[in-house]
Amino acid sequence: MATQTTAPGTTPPSHGEEPAQEPAQEAAADGYVQPDVDVEALQRLLDGRYAEVRALVRRNLVDNADILTDAETMSRGDYRERVKDLIVELAATGQTGMGFPTEHGGGGDPGASVAAFETLAFGDLSVLVKVGVQFGLFGGAIQQLGTRRHHDEYLPRLITGELLGCFAMTETGHGSNVQALGTVATYDVEAGEFVITTTREDARKDYIGNAAAHGELAVVFAQLEVGGEGRGVHAFVVPIRVDGEPAPGVRIEDDGLKMGLNGVDNGRLWFDGVRVPREALLNRFADVSEAGVYESPIDNPNRRFFTMLGTLVTGRVSVGAAGISASKVALAIAVKYALQRRQFEASDDEQESLLLDYGMHQRRLLPLLARTYALHFAQEELTSQLHDVLTGAADDEQTRRELESRAAGTKALGTWHATRTIQECREACGGAGYLAENRFTALKADTDVFTTFEGDNHVLLQLVAKGLLTDYASEFEDMDQLGMARFVAALAVDTVVEKTRVHQLLERVRDLLPGGDEWDQEAGLLDPEYQLAMLRFREEHMISGAARRLKRGVDQGMPAGAVFSRVQDHVIGAADAHMERLVLEAFVAKTRSLPDGDQKVALNLLCDLYALSVIEGDRAWFMEHGRLSVQRSKAISREVAALCRKVRPLAGDLVDAFGVPTEMLRAPELVGELG
Amino acid sequence: MATQTTAPGTTPPSHGEEPAQEPAQEAAADGYVQPDVDVEALQRLLDGRYAEVRALVRRNLVDNADILTDAETMSRGDYRERVKDLIVELAATGQTGMGFPTEHGGGGDPGASVAAFETLAFGDLSVLVKVGVQFGLFGGAIQQLGTRRHHDEYLPRLITGELLGCFAMTETGHGSNVQALGTVATYDVEAGEFVITTTREDARKDYIGNAAAHGELAVVFAQLEVGGEGRGVHAFVVPIRVDGEPAPGVRIEDDGLKMGLNGVDNGRLWFDGVRVPREALLNRFADVSEAGVYESPIDNPNRRFFTMLGTLVTGRVSVGAAGISASKVALAIAVKYALQRRQFEASDDEQESLLLDYGMHQRRLLPLLARTYALHFAQEELTSQLHDVLTGAADDEQTRRELESRAAGTKALGTWHATRTIQECREACGGAGYLAENRFTALKADTDVFTTFEGDNHVLLQLVAKGLLTDYASEFEDMDQLGMARFVAALAVDTVVEKTRVHQLLERVRDLLPGGDEWDQEAGLLDPEYQLAMLRFREEHMISGAARRLKRGVDQGMPAGAVFSRVQDHVIGAADAHMERLVLEAFVAKTRSLPDGDQKVALNLLCDLYALSVIEGDRAWFMEHGRLSVQRSKAISREVAALCRKVRPLAGDLVDAFGVPTEMLRAPELVGELG
Repeated sequence: MATQTTAPGTTPPSHGEEPAQEPAQEAAADGYVQPDVDVEALQRLLDGRYAEVRALVRRNLVDNADILTDAETMSRGDYRERVKDLIVELAATGQTGMGFPTEHGGGGDPGASVAAFETLAFGDLSVLVKVGVQFGLFGGAIQQLGTRRHHDEYLPRLITGELLGCFAMTETGHGSNVQALGTVATYDVEAGEFVITTTREDARKDYIGNAAAHGELAVVFAQLEVGGEGRGVHAFVVPIRVDGEPAPGVRIEDDGLKMGLNGVDNGRLWFDGVRVPREALLNRFADVSEAGVYESPIDNPNRRFFTMLGTLVTGRVSVGAAGISASKVALAIAVKYALQRRQFEASDDEQESLLLDYGMHQRRLLPLLARTYALHFAQEELTSQLHDVLTGAADDEQTRRELESRAAGTKALGTWHATRTIQECREACGGAGYLAENRFTALKADTDVFTTFEGDNHVLLQLVAKGLLTDYASEFEDMDQLGMARFVAALAVDTVVEKTRVHQLLERVRDLLPGGDEWDQEAGLLDPEYQLAMLRFREEHMISGAARRLKRGVDQGMPAGAVFSRVQDHVIGAADAHMERLVLEAFVAKTRSLPDGDQKVALNLLCDLYALSVIEGDRAWFMEHGRLSVQRSKAISREVAALCRKVRPLAGDLVDAFGVPTEMLRAPELVGELG
Repeated sequence: MATQTTAPGTTPPSHGEEPAQEPAQEAAADGYVQPDVDVEALQRLLDGRYAEVRALVRRNLVDNADILTDAETMSRGDYRERVKDLIVELAATGQTGMGFPTEHGGGGDPGASVAAFETLAFGDLSVLVKVGVQFGLFGGAIQQLGTRRHHDEYLPRLITGELLGCFAMTETGHGSNVQALGTVATYDVEAGEFVITTTREDARKDYIGNAAAHGELAVVFAQLEVGGEGRGVHAFVVPIRVDGEPAPGVRIEDDGLKMGLNGVDNGRLWFDGVRVPREALLNRFADVSEAGVYESPIDNPNRRFFTMLGTLVTGRVSVGAAGISASKVALAIAVKYALQRRQFEASDDEQESLLLDYGMHQRRLLPLLARTYALHFAQEELTSQLHDVLTGAADDEQTRRELESRAAGTKALGTWHATRTIQECREACGGAGYLAENRFTALKADTDVFTTFEGDNHVLLQLVAKGLLTDYASEFEDMDQLGMARFVAALAVDTVVEKTRVHQLLERVRDLLPGGDEWDQEAGLLDPEYQLAMLRFREEHMISGAARRLKRGVDQGMPAGAVFSRVQDHVIGAADAHMERLVLEAFVAKTRSLPDGDQKVALNLLCDLYALSVIEGDRAWFMEHGRLSVQRSKAISREVAALCRKVRPLAGDLVDAFGVPTEMLRAPELVGELG
């Protein structure tokens, strides 16, 4: 491999492949001094403003740690009951009700609610998901879509877990495309009632948590028809179970055994002319008068629909956070294992080497560790934005749209990261990782559906892209993918780019990166401004490129659908690039806010490792688009390896700082003595 | 995106992004005519010379299809018994004994044995793995490491399943590093017996199939000590269970619940001075006389060890094949689902679009489909080589070494492909993919350990690299990674390259690719010679680069272990590049052997899609090493998308040709009407 000439401004001079020292214990030739990580202080930083809430949840996790074995040893039926009983117990501690209004017995703190959920994800994930179904989806729908009458009637009892309910949106035939649901609610003006009907077999509600065993009520999403006119999807409170038996007209079927999350009773629901009173409509955004007059403060039906859905954003914020937490558990186990397991002699002293001293093992685990930190801080920002919107501190239309977009994108990144990280960690623990007595079996099986529920990740990234291409213009919020293609095509591409804030981004990048062949020799690889500029450039280029391709396709006479299909991976790639930029910005902002010291040095290592891993992972694109020379591309790979070697001696402390309770790691033989 | 100028010789001219036609039903502008796939004929081609054996296994799979639900509904104990009974039934049909000598009741056909195992992998994988443990590992060790006395005593009864046994190699502390096992077998010359002892806690045998419940005997790998002298690892037949109870001195523990494969009774074994007669030593490669004299036809202890292990190569060949089969099941389900599930309108006729008409969905599934075909044909070649070696048709030292290397590499590629493909297919089926009533739950959980057992994939690729760097020189076969680094360092790098057949490869590439800036404009993307030259160049460059880095590090005074750690990912990358080249060669050879016609056209599409996907996936490397211009790199991505569109209308037929019995797909709602 060619020797890399260190560019001026590269600080510290990159570790090449050759320097022979083992992880520095003292000042290295380049002045690098290995930081000491104060685990408690770092955990305080990660816990942030919700340290107290997290401490409560951790205590509850430890107190109920036996659920992790119950999940294996109990029958499915008993396990479901165990999980149900536990969430009622947890409700009594206050940890599951943080997001509800204080006047109904909640904590009045949406941010704390997400932090509690995030921490709960260190433990059994059936408990987590049942909490999400009950307090997030069911409770959240009552709270956000209902009005005073619904709040008074349902919130107090659902917050305690006395009243269990379902969020009946998804149908067998329709998951992501909610506007096309087949369940119908017809207003019967004579009786003053809605009649709920499953109109065709694939319109049965499916995968509905709390449906198979425990739910008494369901918030049912259905096409509202009033006076023969379709009004789009609305939500209704429908009793589905009376004294443990299906309510009249309701048919219930168990979804049966699932890959994981078998402590949650998912099921199917059919409605055969089920009648509910007029007041069952969750009427915050639309109502039907007794006389059958439909009224809504939002005229545009699509806008109304998306406004309704938008209020349910907490679910996505929470699932993304849970994915990141599950990744922390997996990394804690795999790093601890790699710090005690030896295999093959790799030095001459006849002792076998620790797994984590192998370059390949570092490459497998440490960039994932860095990315977990990055996502943690991005999630923290998102949670804070959610809190501000839900408490009214920042609640304009644009801010809401941006929050929804960011929630969608962070959910996709966080849950894909979980799937990838858990898999890599399991493989890195070999055969031991395959036994159920450690957490990988449950982690893998339980988290697998995270990429699907609360919105399929690919569909969510399309949503992000739509926002970018339209700058969250409210008049276009109703656009599906066809509409997106047509809208973009109707404008000059320059207009698209100028209309969006991507344009402002581009200006900033141009200021920073002078362009031409030389620019990439001038900035240091470890300069966050360089790293940010690279991700900003990629984002801008991909968005405008996607716009250009959409426009060109339509201009050339292709059907909009065919154009969209061809540009789809580009559109999704643009959204991904946007999200990675936001994540890096969050991580850089966090490290910049720290006082100088070892903690800052350690987090800067992780931030560099994250940023350069992202650039390395897409270095082909950067070369194709003239932003990376061959020499510099190779230098980035070498720097990633060098950063892995620097993070190596800190790795144990860095996973300890996640604050995953020892009991949640479970496998004593895998992780050795625990701190 | 810049417009690509089609290079002369590119045939057919690449589909750009713009042409607006839907999948061609007739001759397109570029002369491309969509082929008709004759599903039966294509299945015959895939089934190859073992069509009859595969037909037998398929019939048995269908006859016993209820095992797929038994796996869910039965208790673990009952399921284990069910699986045990089933493998005895299967043994009676002859399908599990194909590889044993006819004189002992086997089929005398090692290739047929792999084909049977490969086909069995369409079904329940606990059955598969129990078959592998009993007939492959246990039976294979008796056959390959034992002599007449062992064959006569054990083979007839183990072939029928009357005598069940274990392959007790792995210990808790040592998996891949078999030479460091801690179990000891000391020869007691007075008694003429071996004394088997577990010397320390982490030397207990672990994850041993058939150990927890059913095994009567175990082939135990232990350090042989004779007259106070250590002779390295040897294998002994040890009774572990008498009348269902642990034999005296043997302690047995159940490994408990596992992520998957819970129909197999994995367990742990401890030996406390267990005595076995002198004849219990499997003495094909070494023996101990009554008087305690150690004798072996192979002088070098390392060479003896690797020769012993080498005879067990069938296991790796079989596991790789099973991974590919599991991928076929997953793809059959996901493709069929994508051909019936509609979501969102993507065209103007108001009907929602089929998932497989989305560009992103094609990109997710179809390159995996192409890769599955590629691996199938590579596996077919490997099975054929194994057959030739085991039947003595080609049995020289070099051929054996190459077979072992190829088996190791194909196992790694096939099992990683399974993990990735099954995950992508599950996600592509959304929530429906999460229910246990389709195959994904079992496929994911059961195959997950394939990347670990029969050798950790990373360790296996290191083995491949070792062979490449030493040209399988028998005098170096005993080298561990330290030895590899030292050996390479002791030579001039040019010598390493010249010594190896990589050198011959390089010469061929140089003939084909004239070099310089122009060469990459001259050859067509769809020319297999171009594709092969690219993969050959990468392989050669990575191997010589790894050699150079190893040498430079040692020359500069770094400890060999530290050098190896830093170059490890490069070494593993070189092995991977080698394997991909072999896979492409196998696919190209197969398509070239076909008569002109639709089948050839269809397979050429898949072969191109596979080759260009591989190049696209590593296009950064090709750009970094001057073998791909930016323009051509972009052209390759466009061609991959165009190939996906051409494969799209064939996809249903292409998965049908795998011949996965309908009953093995299980989920009727997911896959709709089956052909």
